[in-house]
Amino acid sequence: MPEAGRDGAAPVFGRLAIVGLGLIGSSTARGARRYGLADTIVAIDADAAVRARVSELGLADRVTGDAVGGAAEADLVILCVPVGAVGTVAAEIAPHLKPGAILSDVGSVKGSVVAAVMPHLPAGVAFVPGHPVAGTEYSGPDAGFSTLFENRWCILTPPEGTAEAATAQVTRFWEGLGAIVETMSPEHHDLVLAITSHVPHLIAYNIVGTAADLEEVTQSEVIKFSAGGFRDFTRIAASDPTMWRDIFLTNKDAVLEMLGRFNEDLAALARAIRWGDGEALHALFTRTRAIRRGIVAMGQETAEPDFGRRPKVEG
Amino acid sequence: MPEAGRDGAAPVFGRLAIVGLGLIGSSTARGARRYGLADTIVAIDADAAVRARVSELGLADRVTGDAVGGAAEADLVILCVPVGAVGTVAAEIAPHLKPGAILSDVGSVKGSVVAAVMPHLPAGVAFVPGHPVAGTEYSGPDAGFSTLFENRWCILTPPEGTAEAATAQVTRFWEGLGAIVETMSPEHHDLVLAITSHVPHLIAYNIVGTAADLEEVTQSEVIKFSAGGFRDFTRIAASDPTMWRDIFLTNKDAVLEMLGRFNEDLAALARAIRWGDGEALHALFTRTRAIRRGIVAMGQETAEPDFGRRPKVEG
Repeated sequence: MPEAGRDGAAPVFGRLAIVGLGLIGSSTARGARRYGLADTIVAIDADAAVRARVSELGLADRVTGDAVGGAAEADLVILCVPVGAVGTVAAEIAPHLKPGAILSDVGSVKGSVVAAVMPHLPAGVAFVPGHPVAGTEYSGPDAGFSTLFENRWCILTPPEGTAEAATAQVTRFWEGLGAIVETMSPEHHDLVLAITSHVPHLIAYNIVGTAADLEEVTQSEVIKFSAGGFRDFTRIAASDPTMWRDIFLTNKDAVLEMLGRFNEDLAALARAIRWGDGEALHALFTRTRAIRRGIVAMGQETAEPDFGRRPKVEG
Repeated sequence: MPEAGRDGAAPVFGRLAIVGLGLIGSSTARGARRYGLADTIVAIDADAAVRARVSELGLADRVTGDAVGGAAEADLVILCVPVGAVGTVAAEIAPHLKPGAILSDVGSVKGSVVAAVMPHLPAGVAFVPGHPVAGTEYSGPDAGFSTLFENRWCILTPPEGTAEAATAQVTRFWEGLGAIVETMSPEHHDLVLAITSHVPHLIAYNIVGTAADLEEVTQSEVIKFSAGGFRDFTRIAASDPTMWRDIFLTNKDAVLEMLGRFNEDLAALARAIRWGDGEALHALFTRTRAIRRGIVAMGQETAEPDFGRRPKVEG
């Protein structure tokens, strides 16, 4: 039996089914158990190796590869699979969900997820799409931890006509995991995440690829001298390839729009360098400090130098 | 009196003069004192507020605004000023250095520094340009710490004809600060750093600027949802504006060359997204993981998820 919820309240859901026990799915299972957000947790994964590990780690009350059977009696089913697989999984299980059940997901793209899921939704089942803006560069059930969502935003994008009670219940669930919940349209979500997450990942993947392909500079030199800034990019360029492939393919329009703006600005910067316009460079480099201060002030980032990576020995 | 050197050896230099007590200069002063690398440390800074702070922190045996007088009797003078100011400072003090003295610097660009300093070098004084590849996003004398160079590379680029004994002595000094020393030509240095440091900073500054200028997405949204990847870029985009302006203006050719390659690769990625080429995306995203593993294996990066920023509580 779980302990009472974060505020000593009753569990938010009776039976919780999580499909896909990777970083996000396993963190959700850990947090739901720790904070008593569900009476019963069912872990569903198509990968036998993942199921075995989930059982060893004791992350759920029941572990199964049978998505339909595992989800049938659930009050909340959260799809924690790559965005490109959400439609397929929803098509398989949604018709078998019980009346009153809520379906949700954690995908980093919302427009394509809504389009892929809605056609399969039976009457009496609500779909409340979600996106917890949290993660690390590690993948798999071992990478999860119960505090991953603490003080991070979770965005819900309920399609028009979604029962308000269902959105409110999913909100309580994420708040129980420590997240701050905000609601917006799927389209706006995809634009916001394109600039705060998707394009940053794209240019990080890109520069690591560029560096790896150089002939004049060896890979060993890139590695040795990476403390000059490059290594910061390698962290997000180590994120899960399948998840990120799907994100770029399903949020194509917003990513290309934001990338276009990034490229225009970069062309202007290159021009300033070529023509020796030090004032333009200095003005931008001064302006960009304010955003970091805002991020630190809002508790979304540490103020420790170098992300706190360095020993703080004083001499 | 300083303690004996790191290995219990005698100090590497009698009198050490440091010009510019910012992050690097003050870290050098702290390290030199801690590891007993000099008998006497003279701190030279043109800014009275910096001098006052250096005195309060007790970073040097003597603090002065008189660069010529402060450097005249020194055995090693290290210029820790922005790259664009190195030539001016060298022109002022080099003619007054004593025979046998060594002049060095810590600039992030080496070709332009060598060109700016060599004309002012009197007979009997060696110039051993240096670049410790280390730093944080903070600036000023308070930001320094004695272990900043620990297990980081320091690149020396002695011009042809430099006395080997001088290069060896500067090598011992940086090794005393905990650094690993490597020697290469100024031209090769500038190419290596363009990809491992300068272009990464440029694209970080650029995307933070792009995000700040959006109308569809508010600054508050950028800040809230920055944990999706964006916030990693804001760290290096908070680096010192004057230092970075000078770097781009003085390493123009190598930066534009590397930026051109970055742009070509990014155009190919954008094309893969537009045409839905998931295989190309997945292939790149898989390949980029290896470089990070190399950086972690070489002790240049932590393997902790998210740079170790998150609480490691388990549930």
